[in-house]
Amino acid sequence: MTQLAIGIDIGGTKVAGGTVAPDGAVLARARRDTPHRSMSPDVVENTIVEVVDELVAQVAEQSLGEVIAVGIGAAGFVAADRATVAFAPHLSWRDEPLRAALARRVAVPITVDNDANAAAWAEWKFGAARGETHVMIVNLGTGIGGGIVTDGHVQRGRFGIAGEFGHMQVVPNGLRCECGNKGCWEQYASGNALVREARDLIQARSPVANDLLAAVGGDPSALTGPLITAAAQNGDPTAVELLAEIGSWLGVGMANLAAAFDPGTFVIGGGVSAAGPLLLDPARETFRRQLTGRGYRPEAQIVAAELGNEAGLIGAADLARIDVHQSERTATGR
Amino acid sequence: MTQLAIGIDIGGTKVAGGTVAPDGAVLARARRDTPHRSMSPDVVENTIVEVVDELVAQVAEQSLGEVIAVGIGAAGFVAADRATVAFAPHLSWRDEPLRAALARRVAVPITVDNDANAAAWAEWKFGAARGETHVMIVNLGTGIGGGIVTDGHVQRGRFGIAGEFGHMQVVPNGLRCECGNKGCWEQYASGNALVREARDLIQARSPVANDLLAAVGGDPSALTGPLITAAAQNGDPTAVELLAEIGSWLGVGMANLAAAFDPGTFVIGGGVSAAGPLLLDPARETFRRQLTGRGYRPEAQIVAAELGNEAGLIGAADLARIDVHQSERTATGR
Repeated sequence: MTQLAIGIDIGGTKVAGGTVAPDGAVLARARRDTPHRSMSPDVVENTIVEVVDELVAQVAEQSLGEVIAVGIGAAGFVAADRATVAFAPHLSWRDEPLRAALARRVAVPITVDNDANAAAWAEWKFGAARGETHVMIVNLGTGIGGGIVTDGHVQRGRFGIAGEFGHMQVVPNGLRCECGNKGCWEQYASGNALVREARDLIQARSPVANDLLAAVGGDPSALTGPLITAAAQNGDPTAVELLAEIGSWLGVGMANLAAAFDPGTFVIGGGVSAAGPLLLDPARETFRRQLTGRGYRPEAQIVAAELGNEAGLIGAADLARIDVHQSERTATGR
Repeated sequence: MTQLAIGIDIGGTKVAGGTVAPDGAVLARARRDTPHRSMSPDVVENTIVEVVDELVAQVAEQSLGEVIAVGIGAAGFVAADRATVAFAPHLSWRDEPLRAALARRVAVPITVDNDANAAAWAEWKFGAARGETHVMIVNLGTGIGGGIVTDGHVQRGRFGIAGEFGHMQVVPNGLRCECGNKGCWEQYASGNALVREARDLIQARSPVANDLLAAVGGDPSALTGPLITAAAQNGDPTAVELLAEIGSWLGVGMANLAAAFDPGTFVIGGGVSAAGPLLLDPARETFRRQLTGRGYRPEAQIVAAELGNEAGLIGAADLARIDVHQSERTATGR
């Protein structure tokens, strides 16, 4: 019987689950809205269990195989024990013993990872960075999620919190971030930054924003990242410029990461990456202009993610499956 | 007979060599001034060979043991082959095949590493970061050198150029750097930055700089980092402030590195680190204020390097010795 793992990606807006085969294929799906962060941790946990139960039922009904593990990818600081969420700025968790809480209600072993770590793993194993030795993923969504895979291992850091690229300061005394600091990279290169800049333009009553304003029926609060991307793809020069500005900041931050870690490949994922070349071309251009020692060194390639918004759940499932196999090997002394 | 390795640290001002025992002890020393960067690569190579020859002669005269390897630590981008210096901003090297050039004139195997990588290795193996799993070294000298040691391995990146922390941008459109970019961290947190800020104060004719000016007999060009540090240690409040400013920028950059990589220990080395708490206390304070998720995560410790300015040559020697041993194991199939 095929050994399946369930992956759950807990983002700022959606809890997305999938039943994942060993080759990374998603065989079944379930999703819920993420409870608002004013809700208690229990509510999020109930939502996760609902998604797991729905997926387990699908597996049974369709005889897809045997579920051996559940992997959670959470948008937060997951401690090195891969059991506890230390801090989740977009959720209500503070030192939340997520694995223990879920273990009481889920029959198979559970592991918890940062959502972008999970996505980085999936893109390295099944997606855009297959075969690469030094990979950094930059996921542009509400904020920036990051992950590092080196020589086939997720780099989690000493305390499990590596990869929080979005909270590197790029502007001293810059825009306030939800993390409490100022000038964080994700305030300049993310879906939130894109929408904020577009609304700023509208509020400045600039005529260049008229088409965007018309597209939302005159209501700036109805602006979204996908809408701006669609406008850019339809040729609205203002939307193109807005995406280019995000892309340029993306390039600045990647050049900083390249100075420190020298990856061979950057994978750009997350919702904003749907803009494709409208985002990636300006990012590559700025990256090349900002990279220290450019012209005297090989340069990392910058590629679009291949697994879309399912990378997180695919990676979380695969990492959980690997953990189960490693526990079995340890138990049998192999 | 004790198997010794020679380590050579090629910095912006000095070529420092040492004969290093397997326990990290430096048994003999030799040094020369670094040839000016207007000189050809041959001149630097001659200098290295002179230092090696002098050390080999000392080993023979004093019957210290057998030299089995030479390790070079160079202030530049060393390619992943650990043979070629791709780019050295403070020297005249561009794609310089340093190992090949030296191999014609040195009888034992040679390896080339970035000087800060070598120092990081030495501090992890023999110095301030013994027993740590995730270490980042930040060497404040002329510029900033950086190195990463994870789980007992130097992290060199895909192309060998990881650890160039000094060229992460911390100020958009900031001060021009020798690397060609603007706003690089090393323009704000380095020995050069310290001296530049002190001279700025003097040139602004600020009375707060009178004591510093008197200490150099009225000649601002005679100011040096060690002199400013000595003034601070003697209680000159302006010198204390200047060091605190460097320390504060050090903290900003470390918080960025911690966001991305989450080390357990930062080791602060290089000439400026001689200022001790005058540098490190402000660095720790700013680090704690800038660290994303502070209060909800364990925090890296920030410690002073223990091996002083010999860390680079000790690490280069030890890495070269390890390479020889690994080649022997490979050759004999063990």
